[in-house]
Parts: sequence; C-alpha cells; structure tokens
Amino acid sequence: MGFSFAFEITAGGGSASARCGRLRTPHGDIPTPVFAPVGTQATVKTLTPQELEELGTDLILSNTYHLYLRPGTDLVASFGGLHHFMGWQHPILTDSGGFQIFSLAHRRRVDDDGVTFRSHIDGSDHRFTPESTVQAQEELGADIIMCLDECGDALDRQALEPALNRTHAWAVRCRTAQRRDDQALFGILQGGIFRDLRQQSARFLRQLDFPGYAIGGLSVGETKPQMYAALAVTTPELPVDRPRYLMGVGAPEDILESVALGVDIFDCVLPTRVARNGALLTHHGRLNIRNATYRDDAAPIEPGCTCQACQRFSRAYVRHLFQAGEILGLRLATLHNLHFMMRFMEQIRAAITANTFDQFKEQFLAGYRTSDQKARFAHKGGRKAKQSE
Amino acid sequence: MGFSFAFEITAGGGSASARCGRLRTPHGDIPTPVFAPVGTQATVKTLTPQELEELGTDLILSNTYHLYLRPGTDLVASFGGLHHFMGWQHPILTDSGGFQIFSLAHRRRVDDDGVTFRSHIDGSDHRFTPESTVQAQEELGADIIMCLDECGDALDRQALEPALNRTHAWAVRCRTAQRRDDQALFGILQGGIFRDLRQQSARFLRQLDFPGYAIGGLSVGETKPQMYAALAVTTPELPVDRPRYLMGVGAPEDILESVALGVDIFDCVLPTRVARNGALLTHHGRLNIRNATYRDDAAPIEPGCTCQACQRFSRAYVRHLFQAGEILGLRLATLHNLHFMMRFMEQIRAAITANTFDQFKEQFLAGYRTSDQKARFAHKGGRKAKQSE
Repeated sequence: MGFSFAFEITAGGGSASARCGRLRTPHGDIPTPVFAPVGTQATVKTLTPQELEELGTDLILSNTYHLYLRPGTDLVASFGGLHHFMGWQHPILTDSGGFQIFSLAHRRRVDDDGVTFRSHIDGSDHRFTPESTVQAQEELGADIIMCLDECGDALDRQALEPALNRTHAWAVRCRTAQRRDDQALFGILQGGIFRDLRQQSARFLRQLDFPGYAIGGLSVGETKPQMYAALAVTTPELPVDRPRYLMGVGAPEDILESVALGVDIFDCVLPTRVARNGALLTHHGRLNIRNATYRDDAAPIEPGCTCQACQRFSRAYVRHLFQAGEILGLRLATLHNLHFMMRFMEQIRAAITANTFDQFKEQFLAGYRTSDQKARFAHKGGRKAKQSE
Repeated sequence: MGFSFAFEITAGGGSASARCGRLRTPHGDIPTPVFAPVGTQATVKTLTPQELEELGTDLILSNTYHLYLRPGTDLVASFGGLHHFMGWQHPILTDSGGFQIFSLAHRRRVDDDGVTFRSHIDGSDHRFTPESTVQAQEELGADIIMCLDECGDALDRQALEPALNRTHAWAVRCRTAQRRDDQALFGILQGGIFRDLRQQSARFLRQLDFPGYAIGGLSVGETKPQMYAALAVTTPELPVDRPRYLMGVGAPEDILESVALGVDIFDCVLPTRVARNGALLTHHGRLNIRNATYRDDAAPIEPGCTCQACQRFSRAYVRHLFQAGEILGLRLATLHNLHFMMRFMEQIRAAITANTFDQFKEQFLAGYRTSDQKARFAHKGGRKAKQSE
C-alpha cells in the first residue's frame, strides 16, 4: 500500500507523437510502448507463466467479467489476488468487465446506476455498478485497473451520446469508490469516431486526474482509416505525462499507426487467437500453416526467428500437429506469435530511442502484407474477438 | 547401421521374477523396468520433447497405423525419421499397427497374407502385410519395432487359435523382411489367458531368436487376476536374457504385479489420458481435480511432489483451469501424471537393486486405492484406450 505510480517519458514525445516511457508498478516497471497478451481466465491460453516470462512479457491483461463469474473474485482474493492465484509475479491489467457485458452477456439492461446482465456460462443474473467493478478489481489486485464504461458501435452517434454521459458519471463514481492505493485506476474515453465527442470525453476525464487514460470504443465497426483519424484527434487532448492505453487493438499495422500518434499500451487477443487457427505472424504477414504447401517444408515458421518453435521444429511438423488436432501445435503457434509481438515492440522502442521510428514503420509496412484497409472492424464479432478469449 | 543391441540384467533376475536391466539402443541406454508414454501422432499429447526429457523419459511409443495415415511414413522418412521429425533424440518404440487395425479401422478383412482396412480418418482403403509394416517402421526409424500380429478378445479361445497361427507365420515373415540392422525387431506373443496357447506362442517365437519379446493380447476383456495368471505362465517360457514388453498396460498396480513376474517394458495411454479428464495420480490413488472440494484448496496436487505443476500451482488453480476448459490444465495434469510414473519406475528400479522390491510393492499397494480387481478390462473400448491416443 502507499505505492506511488510514476510514468516517465524516456524518448520521443510531444503531444501526439511516438514516445518511449517507463511505467512503475508494484510488480515491476513496464517499458512502453508495450503489448499485453490476454489471459482472460487467469491464463494466457496454452502457456505457463514461466513461458510468458521467457518471452519477455512485461504486462498481461485479464478480464474481470470472466473471473467474477468463474472462479469468483472473492476466491481469487482469498489466494492473495490474481498474481498469486495464477503464479504470475509481473504487472497485470484488468478491465472493468463493461466491454464483456456489452458483447458476451446474454441479456443486459443498462440504467444510470449500473448494468444488469445474464451470465454467458449458466444464464444466472448479475449486476455490475461502478462501485462493484472497482471492488471486484480490488479483489483481483491487478496493478492497473479500469473504470466501468459503456461501449457501443463507433459509428452510431445517437447511441454514443447518452453512453458517453453515463461513462463520465461512472468514471467519477469509480474514482470515489477506489479504496486501495496500490492500483492505478485508468479513466476510459469513449465517443466513437466523432471528434467533438472524443474531445469532450478527454476534457471531462482529464479533470479527474487519472494516472492513465484508456481509449475505448475503437475497432468496433469503423474502418482502419476511421480509427486512425479518431485517434489523431484524441491523443492531442490527453496529458503528455500520463500513459495512454488503446484497448483491444493489436494488429501490427494498427500498433504502428497508433504508436505514431502517441499511444503507449496495447492489448489484443489477435496474436494468440489467430495462432490457434494456424495463422502465424511473420515479417511478411500471416502464414497459414495448414496450407498444403507446408506439408514437406523443412524450414522453420520464420527463418531467423529465435522462438522455441522456430529453433526446434519445421513447418512440416507444426502443420502435422494442426492437421492431427494436437495441442502441441496450439502451443508452438502461440509461442511463435507472442515472440513475434514481443520482438516487434522491442524494435519499436529501439527505433523511437534511436529517433528512427518513421523509417522503421515505413520499412516494416513495406514488407508486411496487411489486411484490407477498407474493411470495417467486425462490429459484433469484433467486439467479442478483441478483448477476451 | 550395424548397431549392436544389448540387454544386460543389472539386478534381480531369475526366470520369472523382478529384475533391473539396461537395454542399449542407437539413441541411448534404457534402464528397465521402464514405462513408455504414448506419442500416437508423433507427439505425447500436450507436451514438448524438452518437457519429456526434463521428466526423465527414457522411451516413448508411437503408433505406426496413425503415422502411416497422417502425415505418412514416407514423409517422416524424408525428414530423416521420426526422431528428427518430432525433435526427440532418445529411444522410440513403434508398434506394427496391427492393434489399431483391429480396434480403430472402420472395416477390416484379415487373410493369411495380411489385412485390408478402411482409415478411421477419411474412410480410404489400405492394406498392411507383415512386410509392409516392417517397411513402414523402417521408414519411421524407431529403435524398437514390432512384428505384425493379430489381437483378439483374451477369453475367446475359438477366435484366438487361428489368430495365433497367423501371428506366428507373420512373425517369420517380419523377421525375413527386416532390412535395417539398427532397429530391434520384437516378436509378439498372443494366446489370451490360455496357458497352453501362451506356452505354444513363447516356444514358437523363441526359435526365431528375437532381440526382445512383447506380450500382446492382454488387458483385452479379462479381469486383472486373469491377466496376472496369464503373465505368470508366460514369462517363465521366455529367455531370461531378452527384454519382455507388456503391451498397453500401465496402471501402477498392474505394473507392480507384472514387474514381479519379470516384465521389463510397459506402455500405456493411461497416465496421459486420465490426466486430460482431470484424474491425477497420487500415492493414495487417483484424485479427481474437478471435485468441488478442491475449489479453494491451496495445497499442490500431491504434497511433496516435485513436478512443475505441484511446485508452482494450487489444486484450486488447476481445478479452475479444468472448469474453464483451459489447455494449461491439460498440460499441468499431464506433466504431473508422467512425473508420477517416472518417479514410480525409478522407485521400482531402486527397490529391485536394493533387494527390497517385495516390501516396496506391498507398501505401495497398501496406500494406493486401486480400481476393482474383479472388473474386466474393457473389451472394445479398452483396446482403443490402451495403446494409442
């Protein structure tokens, strides 16, 4: 208790440009820009905490909604919190559960006081309020915790406006409800792709002097250029000396564009989820290991990669594991993709420090086959897809 | 090529009593009695080769039938054999595929020349002969390989007699078909629970002077006492100076009874398969981690156990992983059960060496809650269950 959070800019900077930083937490310093793998149910799917450590993971995200339903935040608290329960001694970030309620819960009813929902596991009824989600997150004991917010389709202005007001009122209540002083509570901006709503949200939340700010409600129905444009009007409104967290975004091209606009923290299920579908991240884009062309390919997933999978196994073997439905395939693919992401973030930090980020970004994107820029982020599926698994 | 196999008795012995030995293979010495985890599809389910090594695994089994169908023994050969393909540099044993044809293939038709069967994967038609299974196993390149045999219900004398004659004729053809001299080809005894058939089978196969003998056709429909009785009339008929391999048997109580009768090598899916169902092996019997009683249990799976799972995680966490359907639960349970088996075999070898095996067996069984002695081994399911997964 009494821990003092600190965020220090170590390279780059300005109101909306790439920067490196260091965020001090009770479980260690986090170098930024950072990517947090998602451990929805108190485990990053298929991996041990030791493997995450060996990958150089500085931060993981876990989901309050899932842990509240199973095994219960009170149970986790009785084990001394999430770090002890799952055996991970480095920084953890928990969301508030709001996003999952809006995407996963069967039925939900929002009122000004909170939200009533039905569990996606057993249909049982539950209620979250700003106060109860802060309490649940205090039981989990993550280093960074989130306010309860109301998320919606990034393009639906009519629905976004009342949701924004609620999100702001709930942010005030969350700030007041916080009891522990060893957790950094971040405010969450909403406002979809609308410049004035984003500005309004930033200005409101700045007054509450949060130790960090999350940008919510993106990658929900808009196109990539729309998302980048929304970010470009948002980050200049945020205090330079506080970390900015873009929720649920993790495609390499999106990370590069967002880092360029001054974002510090990312999380996404993308690298782990696509891994389990056999899509492996390389500097040339995604490689689908199930393709017949890899049947007798003796090369590693990505030549030159130093991950455990590439050091020890051929594409042919990894493909065989996927074809045969073997769990080891899911493990090796997950290890490879997270190794790729961790090295990618290291390269980004090194480039910012060397003042060569723009060149790095250009070179990376020239080699990397991205998904279609005109495609919209999946609205419903995308919401489910990006922030829990 | 030109490797010379050797089997040396290092402690105990006699024609049908517990003994320790050392079996020299091209990929290292195997201390016996040994238990081989099953890696049906060129992977011991959920684990890496490195983890198997850390567990102290001296031998693994892989299934020719499965690898022949997927990815193909020719493909494995093009990678320099199974050791290279799967990244395991220690001894491997492959079965002939006969057992799977009789339990897994959709339709099969046996004639004196071989067996025609339909793939359980895609319904395609295939044929195995003694010669083709030896060739397939030479492509896989395991250290120990098996003759093609015909397995049946251990109690069905009428069906067993013609199958026995075929098994013997096929053994002669396998012996003749062998081209590589760096693989130890074992003969397989059949004969169910019938003393005279077992004796006849042992006497026939001894004449062929195999470097080792497998005892097939047990744990297929008979009770445990019937199996032990059949073993007791079989091992005295086998040459003392050759390793004896009891196929598909791996329950701790069965291993103890079989070691007492002079068996050296075991394989079974039991520890890995029950792990994935949440059944964890302890010195008091199986612990079902899904039981509600473990919901808030901070103890490790088995206090005092030095496996990775017990060193790092609580029963409550492992239970949570199972309840939530997380792959890490399957990994931790598999690691624990194989660690249990490897330590168990070490204890058996130490006790034989110290001339205290009888006491060890008695003490172990006094504490271990075994399954019902009167229960029959499952006939059809049991055949599937024990030798591939």
